[in-house]
Amino acid sequence: MGNCIVPYCDGPQNTNVRFTLPAVCFVWQSAMIILFGVFVRYDGESDAHWVEHKAKENITSDIENDYYFRYPSFQDVHVMIFVGFGFLMTFMKRYGFGAVGFNFLIGAFGLQWALLMQGWFHSLDPVDGFIKIGVENIINADFCVAGCLIAYGAVLGKVSPVQVMVLTLFGITLFSVEEFIIISLLHARDSGGSMVIHAFGGYYGLAISWVLYRPNLKESSQRNGSVYHSDLFAMIGTLFLWMFWPSFNSAISDHGDGQHRAAINTYLSLAATVLTTFAISSLFQKHGKLDMVHIQNSTLAGGVAVGTAAEFMLMPYGSLIVGFFCGIISTLGYIYVSPYIEKKFKIQDTCGVHNLHAVPGLLGGFVGAITAAAATETVYGAEGLINTFDFVGSYKNRTPAVQGGYQAAATCVAVCVGIGGGIFVGLILRMPIWGAAADDQCFEDEIYWEVPGEEEPVPPVLEYNNHTATNKNADVMESRFTVEQS
Amino acid sequence: MGNCIVPYCDGPQNTNVRFTLPAVCFVWQSAMIILFGVFVRYDGESDAHWVEHKAKENITSDIENDYYFRYPSFQDVHVMIFVGFGFLMTFMKRYGFGAVGFNFLIGAFGLQWALLMQGWFHSLDPVDGFIKIGVENIINADFCVAGCLIAYGAVLGKVSPVQVMVLTLFGITLFSVEEFIIISLLHARDSGGSMVIHAFGGYYGLAISWVLYRPNLKESSQRNGSVYHSDLFAMIGTLFLWMFWPSFNSAISDHGDGQHRAAINTYLSLAATVLTTFAISSLFQKHGKLDMVHIQNSTLAGGVAVGTAAEFMLMPYGSLIVGFFCGIISTLGYIYVSPYIEKKFKIQDTCGVHNLHAVPGLLGGFVGAITAAAATETVYGAEGLINTFDFVGSYKNRTPAVQGGYQAAATCVAVCVGIGGGIFVGLILRMPIWGAAADDQCFEDEIYWEVPGEEEPVPPVLEYNNHTATNKNADVMESRFTVEQS
Amino acid sequence: MGNCIVPYCDGPQNTNVRFTLPAVCFVWQSAMIILFGVFVRYDGESDAHWVEHKAKENITSDIENDYYFRYPSFQDVHVMIFVGFGFLMTFMKRYGFGAVGFNFLIGAFGLQWALLMQGWFHSLDPVDGFIKIGVENIINADFCVAGCLIAYGAVLGKVSPVQVMVLTLFGITLFSVEEFIIISLLHARDSGGSMVIHAFGGYYGLAISWVLYRPNLKESSQRNGSVYHSDLFAMIGTLFLWMFWPSFNSAISDHGDGQHRAAINTYLSLAATVLTTFAISSLFQKHGKLDMVHIQNSTLAGGVAVGTAAEFMLMPYGSLIVGFFCGIISTLGYIYVSPYIEKKFKIQDTCGVHNLHAVPGLLGGFVGAITAAAATETVYGAEGLINTFDFVGSYKNRTPAVQGGYQAAATCVAVCVGIGGGIFVGLILRMPIWGAAADDQCFEDEIYWEVPGEEEPVPPVLEYNNHTATNKNADVMESRFTVEQS
Repeated sequence: MGNCIVPYCDGPQNTNVRFTLPAVCFVWQSAMIILFGVFVRYDGESDAHWVEHKAKENITSDIENDYYFRYPSFQDVHVMIFVGFGFLMTFMKRYGFGAVGFNFLIGAFGLQWALLMQGWFHSLDPVDGFIKIGVENIINADFCVAGCLIAYGAVLGKVSPVQVMVLTLFGITLFSVEEFIIISLLHARDSGGSMVIHAFGGYYGLAISWVLYRPNLKESSQRNGSVYHSDLFAMIGTLFLWMFWPSFNSAISDHGDGQHRAAINTYLSLAATVLTTFAISSLFQKHGKLDMVHIQNSTLAGGVAVGTAAEFMLMPYGSLIVGFFCGIISTLGYIYVSPYIEKKFKIQDTCGVHNLHAVPGLLGGFVGAITAAAATETVYGAEGLINTFDFVGSYKNRTPAVQGGYQAAATCVAVCVGIGGGIFVGLILRMPIWGAAADDQCFEDEIYWEVPGEEEPVPPVLEYNNHTATNKNADVMESRFTVEQS
Repeated sequence: MGNCIVPYCDGPQNTNVRFTLPAVCFVWQSAMIILFGVFVRYDGESDAHWVEHKAKENITSDIENDYYFRYPSFQDVHVMIFVGFGFLMTFMKRYGFGAVGFNFLIGAFGLQWALLMQGWFHSLDPVDGFIKIGVENIINADFCVAGCLIAYGAVLGKVSPVQVMVLTLFGITLFSVEEFIIISLLHARDSGGSMVIHAFGGYYGLAISWVLYRPNLKESSQRNGSVYHSDLFAMIGTLFLWMFWPSFNSAISDHGDGQHRAAINTYLSLAATVLTTFAISSLFQKHGKLDMVHIQNSTLAGGVAVGTAAEFMLMPYGSLIVGFFCGIISTLGYIYVSPYIEKKFKIQDTCGVHNLHAVPGLLGGFVGAITAAAATETVYGAEGLINTFDFVGSYKNRTPAVQGGYQAAATCVAVCVGIGGGIFVGLILRMPIWGAAADDQCFEDEIYWEVPGEEEPVPPVLEYNNHTATNKNADVMESRFTVEQS
Repeated sequence: MGNCIVPYCDGPQNTNVRFTLPAVCFVWQSAMIILFGVFVRYDGESDAHWVEHKAKENITSDIENDYYFRYPSFQDVHVMIFVGFGFLMTFMKRYGFGAVGFNFLIGAFGLQWALLMQGWFHSLDPVDGFIKIGVENIINADFCVAGCLIAYGAVLGKVSPVQVMVLTLFGITLFSVEEFIIISLLHARDSGGSMVIHAFGGYYGLAISWVLYRPNLKESSQRNGSVYHSDLFAMIGTLFLWMFWPSFNSAISDHGDGQHRAAINTYLSLAATVLTTFAISSLFQKHGKLDMVHIQNSTLAGGVAVGTAAEFMLMPYGSLIVGFFCGIISTLGYIYVSPYIEKKFKIQDTCGVHNLHAVPGLLGGFVGAITAAAATETVYGAEGLINTFDFVGSYKNRTPAVQGGYQAAATCVAVCVGIGGGIFVGLILRMPIWGAAADDQCFEDEIYWEVPGEEEPVPPVLEYNNHTATNKNADVMESRFTVEQS
């Protein structure tokens, strides 16, 4: 993006964030406290007045508190956000601290801001005007954070912690607006967030990455890769995302069959994706060897693409079909599309969010639209159809076909807000005031982290034990040391 | 097994699976889609007709949907299957990708095939002939997969991904047959699967390993061991298996006291196992040092052995006794039995499944038989006895003593099907068409995986910071590089 | 503590625990079996008589079994104890086995002893005199273990496995006494254990560490640090503690709103802590670089400090305020206080439990006292106030103000028992009979563990593939080997 309207400082910026990062953290956290003090209270099910609430709502048992319907799913989602996303990004040999650490920072700030933004749009108490929060709100806050973490994946290793905070502040804001349009105005359903989370987050990140294009990034290329152990750390992230995705897609679905069905559909879709990912990965590699990049990422595409339709009557075979094609499309994306869009469109996508989130999210939106349009009373039952698509109140007369149209429109909204917002935020992040690293210093923890240092070689501790004694010299740190001596 | 009826190609096979692996994945996954389309539908609790189902079954609240009874346990089991088994096998220095990656592939394919096989045996709807699936089916599918993963542990590092798929296809099939005989025909109880999962899976894997005996495997011995970090990765697997085992043994127990009791018994048994494992490990080592192999594996034996009896009135002290002896037996197995059966019986058991699954599973079967035979109305209560052993319908008059006999018989069935099936599948896997590695190429990820490669040394990025600058040269990749220069 | 009354053997002790460790494990585990046999039975909800129990208690559905209210939280707590604490302590380059392994041993023994000790104090059946256990008991047992693991953090790398067992035996005993005084005698509330678990455990460990002062510990200093990978392993522990802390603080709260509110408050407090931790870490480092020690530890302080008040009407903004200040205090503690107390008070605190548990626990106690004292019927509702503070029976007339006083007193009890008990146990551990390592052999796994050894360099396996062939030589083990040749 050479002809960008904002002058981009190619000269080395000062990467010392000693004052900017603390300033941002303190000011924004203080603002959160004030805003929570003014706006946020417990909802009827988490407030000590629960006893009266129970009586009012004719709830007969404590077990019917929404906490017991959703809390286990919440914890699974929470693990996906902090361990799943965090460790998935630790694949790079020198950026593990930045991957898991800044992921942690994004999540912790983002969920607070999300509770406020989503609260204003969805959880305002008409009586006293407070935002009333319960377990469903904190699940949605985690979802909101996921959108920003996806975007972070596109710029991983190329931005400063301060830029990461800015990306999150605007990301959460844009997410909430887009979500309000899709869920409230268009009355589209998106329990697993294919559109709201993945399509938005993916395109938001790609647009930012496009604006922040680094012409000389190849000078950091020798750091932009994995080592054996870092690939295993990344698999921790992959597996926790893959295993808990059924909880992700069912966390905010309807009580009863809604959550039950969403979990089963996601479970099946993800299973099919694994097989086609292995197949394509082997088929397109020299000597038929498997590539960890595909196993770590494309195996998850089925969970993304089934997000919207998971709570619908997609049918078990329908879920398998979605997973089948997503594994193929996502893996081929890593092999062919990512290099192409970097070369042609100057989009440097560190984690390949284009193939894992953007495109599968887009597909998921349309799968949802088709599944909704095809819904019938025979398949759902009269009441089931109303419950599943929430055809009540002013939507009492909406037909499945019309619903399908709105679902498709919602997908476009997610993509447009993502791209538009990403370009806007990207321009802000281009300003040479955020302490970004130079092109030849990317993917490097040492820029923002104290990295463990050298030390003296350690003499054997146990004379009686030669075997172990020699071990000592073999210690990684020693070998480093010896290496430098040699 | 030199006198094997099938000629074994000792010459190096072509390990390039570029066409066989994708072919198997695509064809089998397509078959799954077709079979699911023809046979599989949602059950009453995951179908959108839930509202009518609720009314028909007189269910008063959504919280009584089976999803809320079992889903948290399902997620714990899911973690055990993919992270637990997967990382437990990453202990080898050069086989982490194969351990966690092929474990992932087995699980993803196996659970689909298991839903069909188990469905035909147990979940056919008498009215419309469809397999109706819900949360209990996906738990059982994960259980079924566990049997194959146990078998994989015995041949870890010695088989190709294609062989792994074949092992899974037949393993799931055999499992379902054996399970049908044990659960449906013998009417034995096995909520934690000591017999159905562990005894079967263990002997299935040992039999395969026996048929696939590699006379020159010692040529790969320098790769068949751990490094410091790989032992820590393996501990991730160990701990997630250990922590979630109470969920594993209680996942499909009766609602209410059944699940509650099964979890408590397993929790206690596992705790006792840890202490005796540490004791034996230290007692039998030179200098009393602890061996990570024992801590990673034998600490889990108590969970295996209490599997069948966990839902019975085993009593807290009974659980501790089971765990106490299993820790001893399993650890001694690693020290004495594994080397012995490799030398005498030519069974090369990479992960020692003999000591962690086969023998403890066998013991668990008999513990279950004894506990069942000793059951009385005083201890269980009249209704409790009927509910626990499901003495209803045609089994209304079965006595605890008779039940104990059937439990013991069931254990034998599991072992026999495991051994017989393993020999059969082993012979198939001996055919020189599966791309297996030669004896001197075992335990090596490079055969089937792209392993991270070399690169140029990276110059210090931050001149102002000598401390960190020197770090850079100390980076693992650099040290490798420098080493080759020196 | 040069003027200690017990002579401290500065000469190298024999670190061979080949007989002491097995002896302790066998004898104590056997004692557990006997004591469980004599005292422990299932409670009404885990016993097969559940059907009759249900009728007696007018429980209408199996879903109202306490298992379904608490089991998901129990599993989260279980993960925190074994993976959370275990991996958090793997940060040291040479002590990963001891960290995760001895953590495992402490947990497995401690939970059995805790079930007995806490059972005698809290779960004795007045009719038959048995300890009746259910899911709440095993949660409390895990909590009890947490207190000992916190103490272990203070002496990590400096004690033998036998000392660890002794520390646990007395730690559990002291914990149960202190808990009985606080919960039963003072009738203080402490659902998250700020006082009972963290303040007690922290000061217990610090006092032991003080008595076990090692004047020449600096001779092990080169081992007392992290390497890049070990810091990532530690982050696994940090994140699982951070994510599941809401379950920890809500696990034994009241059904319904109590658990719901406790989870939300903890979720918020922890989020605020992360931001202030990042801020202080960057602000006080040269070049504004972040320090992994702070990110791994101080980010958790908010969960500790909100433990007592989490189930009260702390209000969302109140939780954020608690987290805000705890992040600051804890991080500054790591930067300034820990070095100071080591220098001035001769307290060598390996993991900095002073900053993560002791001080935040103390603060949490007082936050709870203030929140309780400020409780009003308007905020809690008449019934809500009674339920939250359990103002029933002999406490019917206790006012919130008085309750606040008792809460404050309870905090002092926790600290005093912790310090007093720690000094007592420390003196026992000073005896030169436990096989402790010498000052220059601390933080070293080789003392008590078989550590993976050397081997021959492995020739390339695949001639056709130069790329991978060279990989082989680059393998860590080879580089070690080559290094020694050079």
